[in-house]
Amino acid sequence: MRKPKIVILGAGYGGLMTTVRLQKQLGVNEADITLVNKNNYHYESTWLHEASAGTLPADRTRYKVTDVIDKSKVHFLVDTVTSINREEKTVALSKGGELNYDYLVVSLGYEAETFGIKGLKEHAFSIANLNAARQIREHIEYQFATYNTEKDRRDDRLTIVVGGAGFTGIEFLGELANRAPELCQEFDVPQEKVRIICVEAAPTVLPGFDPELVEYAVNQLEKKGVEFKIGTAIKEATEEGIIVAKDDQVEEIKAGTVVWAAGVRGNHLVEDSGFENMRGRVKVDPYLRAPGHDDVFIVGDCSLIINEEINRPYPPTAQIAMQQGEICAKNLAVLVRGQGELEAFTPDLKGSVCSLGEDDAIGVVFGRKVWGSKASFMKKMVDNRALFMIGGPGLVMKKGKFNIL
Amino acid sequence: MRKPKIVILGAGYGGLMTTVRLQKQLGVNEADITLVNKNNYHYESTWLHEASAGTLPADRTRYKVTDVIDKSKVHFLVDTVTSINREEKTVALSKGGELNYDYLVVSLGYEAETFGIKGLKEHAFSIANLNAARQIREHIEYQFATYNTEKDRRDDRLTIVVGGAGFTGIEFLGELANRAPELCQEFDVPQEKVRIICVEAAPTVLPGFDPELVEYAVNQLEKKGVEFKIGTAIKEATEEGIIVAKDDQVEEIKAGTVVWAAGVRGNHLVEDSGFENMRGRVKVDPYLRAPGHDDVFIVGDCSLIINEEINRPYPPTAQIAMQQGEICAKNLAVLVRGQGELEAFTPDLKGSVCSLGEDDAIGVVFGRKVWGSKASFMKKMVDNRALFMIGGPGLVMKKGKFNIL
Repeated sequence: MRKPKIVILGAGYGGLMTTVRLQKQLGVNEADITLVNKNNYHYESTWLHEASAGTLPADRTRYKVTDVIDKSKVHFLVDTVTSINREEKTVALSKGGELNYDYLVVSLGYEAETFGIKGLKEHAFSIANLNAARQIREHIEYQFATYNTEKDRRDDRLTIVVGGAGFTGIEFLGELANRAPELCQEFDVPQEKVRIICVEAAPTVLPGFDPELVEYAVNQLEKKGVEFKIGTAIKEATEEGIIVAKDDQVEEIKAGTVVWAAGVRGNHLVEDSGFENMRGRVKVDPYLRAPGHDDVFIVGDCSLIINEEINRPYPPTAQIAMQQGEICAKNLAVLVRGQGELEAFTPDLKGSVCSLGEDDAIGVVFGRKVWGSKASFMKKMVDNRALFMIGGPGLVMKKGKFNIL
Repeated sequence: MRKPKIVILGAGYGGLMTTVRLQKQLGVNEADITLVNKNNYHYESTWLHEASAGTLPADRTRYKVTDVIDKSKVHFLVDTVTSINREEKTVALSKGGELNYDYLVVSLGYEAETFGIKGLKEHAFSIANLNAARQIREHIEYQFATYNTEKDRRDDRLTIVVGGAGFTGIEFLGELANRAPELCQEFDVPQEKVRIICVEAAPTVLPGFDPELVEYAVNQLEKKGVEFKIGTAIKEATEEGIIVAKDDQVEEIKAGTVVWAAGVRGNHLVEDSGFENMRGRVKVDPYLRAPGHDDVFIVGDCSLIINEEINRPYPPTAQIAMQQGEICAKNLAVLVRGQGELEAFTPDLKGSVCSLGEDDAIGVVFGRKVWGSKASFMKKMVDNRALFMIGGPGLVMKKGKFNIL
C-alpha cells in the first residue's frame, strides 16, 4: 500500500507545530512526512527584535530543527522552495530537487510590506529573519564604533529611526532604549547624542490595545529617551535618513539607521503559485485549507482568518500559528486515515503581551490588564511556552528566558 | 619661588611612564606637572590588533589615566593638542586652552604612513588607536552579518586583506585566523568562503627576524588559512578592494575589508611645529632632547634613535618608549633640581616576541629563540610587564593576561 505523502513548507511556528504534532499522531507506516526549511534551524521570530537590538545573542533565538523532529518519521530537507505547482501537486526546490505531495502544508511565514514607499527597500532594514536581525545589530554597532573615528563627528550616525508603532515597532523600541546606554559605554559615545525616533502614520501607538496601557507604554519609552512622531508618515527613505510628513509639514530626519517595522505580508510564493490571496495571505476555509484545494493547508502568516466580531483579519501571531499547527496536524491525520471528522479552527486568544524591554511590558492576559515587571514576567512565560509547545521541557531549559526580575 | 612647569603631551607608553616616574621622583613643591591626553584613558597600543580582530574586548586594552597618576602631583587634562609653539614655549589645546612650559615632553605617538598610495586613506582601515580598532572589529562583523542577507552572496565580503607582513601585520593575521572560525559560527558563514590575505611588498615576512622563526610563523598562519602574497605591492585601494602588482603582473583583489598595517610615522604635530624631523620623528640627542631645544624631550614613536650596530633607526616599540620614559623622568628631575648629571639613553633590548594569535608566537628573548606555547606565554608576560611597569601589581591583576595555555 502506498503511503500518502505530506510535505510541509517552512519550520516556523505553524509548520513546526504541524510537524511535531503529526509525528506524534501518525505511525511510521501511515504517512511519508517531509519538512522543508530554508535553514537547519527554527528561530523565534517573536524574539528577533531583541537580536536586532543586540540585547539577546542571535543564537539564543534559534534551535536546530533536528532537535525537535522524530527522524524516524520525518524527512527534513534544508532547501528553499522556489515554486508550488498546484495542478501537478509538486514543489520545486532551489537546489534542483522536486517533491510531490498528496497533502501540502504551506507555512512559509511573513515578509516585509513596504507599501511602495520610495527607497525603503534600499535604505531601510526590516526585522525579516535571523540574518536580517544580525545585520541590524552589527549595523548599529558599526555606526556607534565609527562615530569617534571621524574628525567631523556626525551625530546622525547615532540616530535610529523605527518606522511603525505597532507590536514589533514598540517591542524593538523597548530593546533599543535599553541597549543605547550599553552602546554608549562600549563605544565612548555621549548618551545625549543618541536619538531613537519612532515614526507612525496612524493617529495612535499600538492601535487596538487598551488606551491606558498604551499611555503607560509611551510614557515608559519616552522616559528612556524614545521620541514619538505620531500621525506622521514616512514619505521616502534615502541614503541619509528619511523624509516624513505630518499634515502638510515635510521634514527630513537624518539617521544612520532606519528600521521598517510597520508592515508584514504573506510570502510572495503564495502569490506566485496562483492561490487566491491578499498580499500573500490566503483566506482559508474553516479547516485551514486553501479555497478549492482540499489537499493544501495554509497556516501561520500566509493564512488569513477573519475575526467575525470586528469583521477584520486576526493579526498574524505566533499564538495563532501554533494553534493552527495543532488543528492542521489533526486534520491531516483524519485525511490520511480516511476516518474521523475534520475539525474547524477557532483561535483561542489567551491574551497579548507587548514587551517594552526585558524589564517592562504591557498586556492583557485572560482579560486582565498587566504592566511593568508582572507583565514582563508574563511575556517571558509566553516566550517559554512557545518553546515548550514545540520542544517540551528540554527545549525550555536550553533556550528559555529565566532572567526574571 | 616659582615652580618649573613640566608639560607632558600624550599618555601612551612613553608619556605615561615619564609621568609615573616623575611623580615618584619629585616632591609636590618641586615642579608643576601637567599631563595632556586626547582620552581619559591609556590604551595598550600593542594589543590593538586583538581588539581590531575582536579576540579581546576593546575595553580590556585600556585603563583610566587617573588610575595610575598621583593627583596631588599631576594635573591631568583631557584635551587634544593643536599646536606647539617652541619660541613662546606654549602648547595650544583644541578646547581653546593654552599651556606654557619650562620643560616639554612630546610623546604623541604614531600615525599610519600610507606612502601616498592611492585610495588607502579613503578605503583602508588602519589600527591607529582604540577608536579605529573598534571600528575595524565592527566593520568585519558587519560584513559577515551581511553575507547571508543578500540574494547574490558576495564572497569578497568575507575577504580580509592585511597590507604588510611586519610586526603588526603578522600579529593581526594571527588574531584574524583565530577569529574567523568564531565569526563563521556566529554568522552561519561557510569557513571555506573566508579569505585572509597578507600582501607584503618586501621580499620577506617579518624582515629582521630570525629566518627559522619566520618560516615557523608563515607555516603556522598558512595552516590556519592565511594566504601570503610576498614581494607584492599594493598599488591602489578602491571601494571594492585593492590592486596589487608583483613584477609586472597586476591583479585586483576584491575585499570587504582592507587593513593597512605596513607603515607608521610620528605625529604630524611634530612636523607642523617645526622640529627637525623625518616623517614626524625627531632624531633626539643622547638625553632624548630635540636638537637645539634643551627644554623639549621627545619620547616614544616621535623620537628617532639610530642603532649604531646596523646604522638604522630602532623600530618604535613600547619597550623602548617605556625605557625612554624612565630616562626622561630622571633627566627632568636633574634639570628641575639643577643638580646631578643628565643620563644618556641606551635601549636595553630584552628581546622581541611576535604573537601569532593567543595560542602561538615566535620570539627571541635574552638571545634565545622561542616559539609555540612557550613564546605565547612569554608574550603575555611582556604584555603584563607593561602594565606592571606603569601601574604596578594592581593594574596587572585588573587588566593582565592570564589565559595561559
